[in-house]
Amino acid sequence: MTDFARTKSLFVLPEGVIYLDGNSLGPLPKAAAARVQKTVESEWGNMLISGWNKAGWMAQPSHLGDRIARLIGAPDGTVTLGDTLSVKVYQALAAALALRPDRKKIVSDNGNFPTDLYMARGLIESLNAGHVLCTPAPEDVADEIDTDLAVLMLTEVDYRTGRRHDMKALTQAAHAVGAIVIWDLAHSAGAFPVDVAGCNADFAVGCTYKYLNGGPGAPAFIYVAPEHIENVQPALAGWLGHDAPFEFDLKYRAGTGIERMRVGTPPVLQMAALETALDIWDLADLKDVQAKSIDLTQAFIAEIEATCPSLTLASPRDPNTRGSQVSFAHPEGYAIMQALIARGVIGDFRAPNILRFGFTPLYIDMADVQGAVAIIADIMTNDLWDRPEYKTRARVT
Amino acid sequence: MTDFARTKSLFVLPEGVIYLDGNSLGPLPKAAAARVQKTVESEWGNMLISGWNKAGWMAQPSHLGDRIARLIGAPDGTVTLGDTLSVKVYQALAAALALRPDRKKIVSDNGNFPTDLYMARGLIESLNAGHVLCTPAPEDVADEIDTDLAVLMLTEVDYRTGRRHDMKALTQAAHAVGAIVIWDLAHSAGAFPVDVAGCNADFAVGCTYKYLNGGPGAPAFIYVAPEHIENVQPALAGWLGHDAPFEFDLKYRAGTGIERMRVGTPPVLQMAALETALDIWDLADLKDVQAKSIDLTQAFIAEIEATCPSLTLASPRDPNTRGSQVSFAHPEGYAIMQALIARGVIGDFRAPNILRFGFTPLYIDMADVQGAVAIIADIMTNDLWDRPEYKTRARVT
Repeated sequence: MTDFARTKSLFVLPEGVIYLDGNSLGPLPKAAAARVQKTVESEWGNMLISGWNKAGWMAQPSHLGDRIARLIGAPDGTVTLGDTLSVKVYQALAAALALRPDRKKIVSDNGNFPTDLYMARGLIESLNAGHVLCTPAPEDVADEIDTDLAVLMLTEVDYRTGRRHDMKALTQAAHAVGAIVIWDLAHSAGAFPVDVAGCNADFAVGCTYKYLNGGPGAPAFIYVAPEHIENVQPALAGWLGHDAPFEFDLKYRAGTGIERMRVGTPPVLQMAALETALDIWDLADLKDVQAKSIDLTQAFIAEIEATCPSLTLASPRDPNTRGSQVSFAHPEGYAIMQALIARGVIGDFRAPNILRFGFTPLYIDMADVQGAVAIIADIMTNDLWDRPEYKTRARVT
Repeated sequence: MTDFARTKSLFVLPEGVIYLDGNSLGPLPKAAAARVQKTVESEWGNMLISGWNKAGWMAQPSHLGDRIARLIGAPDGTVTLGDTLSVKVYQALAAALALRPDRKKIVSDNGNFPTDLYMARGLIESLNAGHVLCTPAPEDVADEIDTDLAVLMLTEVDYRTGRRHDMKALTQAAHAVGAIVIWDLAHSAGAFPVDVAGCNADFAVGCTYKYLNGGPGAPAFIYVAPEHIENVQPALAGWLGHDAPFEFDLKYRAGTGIERMRVGTPPVLQMAALETALDIWDLADLKDVQAKSIDLTQAFIAEIEATCPSLTLASPRDPNTRGSQVSFAHPEGYAIMQALIARGVIGDFRAPNILRFGFTPLYIDMADVQGAVAIIADIMTNDLWDRPEYKTRARVT
């Protein structure tokens, strides 16, 4: 049984804050500061160039990849780290399309995180080979699976609503028509048990700064099913994906297995921070995480609905079809979230009208839920959000 | 006049080490540890998600981009940071080819760093539009510039020999036949004055962990000439290159100016370290850096040639056609470099036979040159490299 009091004690959680935004950026593991400092001073500072071998920097993407593999149901040697999630989506889609050269149809959905769709469109324009990207509503995805389908590319959990696709069923349906399937696990990894191997996913990608708590700008990950990896010729053929990077061969020769999905120099300081986050994950069982997430989210929904009738549930009511977040809709969602943040309840506003709250059992407990509900109810009941300072939107870029 | 004693004092330089490898990984700025710690503890730890705005993380790629722009002769607002150099090469080449849709010839050279060529080949395969990549010897590049040329893509300084292309003349020649020019400044930025605007470069890319001292895994940079940027539709169309990322628009709309070359979430910890390195660059005049580099490298060549006749100069003798490195060839180069490293003289071995020494005036001075020469001469004169332990090559990946 996971000791959640212990895991909570391992994070820095500022006084006066109830942090329901760990699905956007996880909090700081207490061990991260010292670990990053060690990497900066003892490794970079003292080892200089030899840190690549002596401190193990060069092998970190594989080592950390194996640790992430365990969290998503993947075998060792099938996951590597690097780049951003956008770049990993591009790599996965390029490889997947190359496995189905005679098909032109790509299906995603209109609830996918926009960057996945942008990267797909950028790739389609580069390929200039007549690929078509279909983006039905999430609930209509299954209807688009037919024998024209090259690649089904979905984010398992909708970033707006928390709606969760049936990963196993959709993968099976796509395979039945001969298509390749890519899963974006941005809102899945660390939120509940994921089983990429059991679902027969062909590719999976994700980020490590949300539920995994790797820190701002932490690298992304990519999984490629063992049956495909030797057939993948990376579109982003970087030197660290070469079979022998330090031979400085002028000809690219794809590295063994998942190593070929590496591109350039890995972000050593970011990986050091991520490592401490993964140490905490070693203490957790994702089945326990999911059970606690269901307790927290069900209680949150029940209490918000009981106290704030103007907030409309925008997430699935059934926890088995929902990720570890709860969203409510309100036309004044932006101002309400500003008012909440001013009172220390941190969630996200997602245009046009979504208030999004992430529930991260490693460090959020029922007392946090009660505290958040009390503040939300106060703000809604007394219209405390209805102030000009909460309504001015800063342009964020 | 740059105060090089002062700049040297701002780096951590381990006792007993003469570090002639700053062209591979620059040393640790003394201020970096505290700055990274602040980012980890005060920003990530206390601000959590609000760090993106409050701590300025989101704007860092533009701010640091402007600071790098000053080091490469680019105007403000034309350089941004992110990803790795391999990815930036891909972005630049994809954009450059799109500007010359009717031409199929890409010219680089066989001294380019392999990842640039790999990325180009990966892109060519994706485009599947008949592009051809020519890789003549560096000295024969000019002969390949003709009216078929779409893109000339060169690394200004050869990573093996230090041979430096004539950036202005080659750019002019390529423009005269209507081609686009991309310069990889990996071994130029921070090594000597670069003038991308004065040379009319169309694109430039580079890394920040070599001469710029940004640390292991520091992000890459990309410059796009103002006359082109509004015509560039990024192949890697990531959400942070969107005109309004937080509108979560399903359609990609390229951001203003250089912002569109951003892709995904920037590496916040790496940028914090880089910032302290750029603070040191604020104290330096690159003309002084170049003058001192010439003094150091000319002295090194003269003394090595006088004491070690078996080492053959592999770099241009004329400092005006050389970057800030000196390479010597020797059939036993690998073992010799291992013996040097064991004695604290850190350089690089580059297959098959190159001993490479980088000269970085911010923290290397004439006393370091004398010290290095004495050790190299001892090792060569007394065949101290001729030991089994120096000859066993570890496979590095």
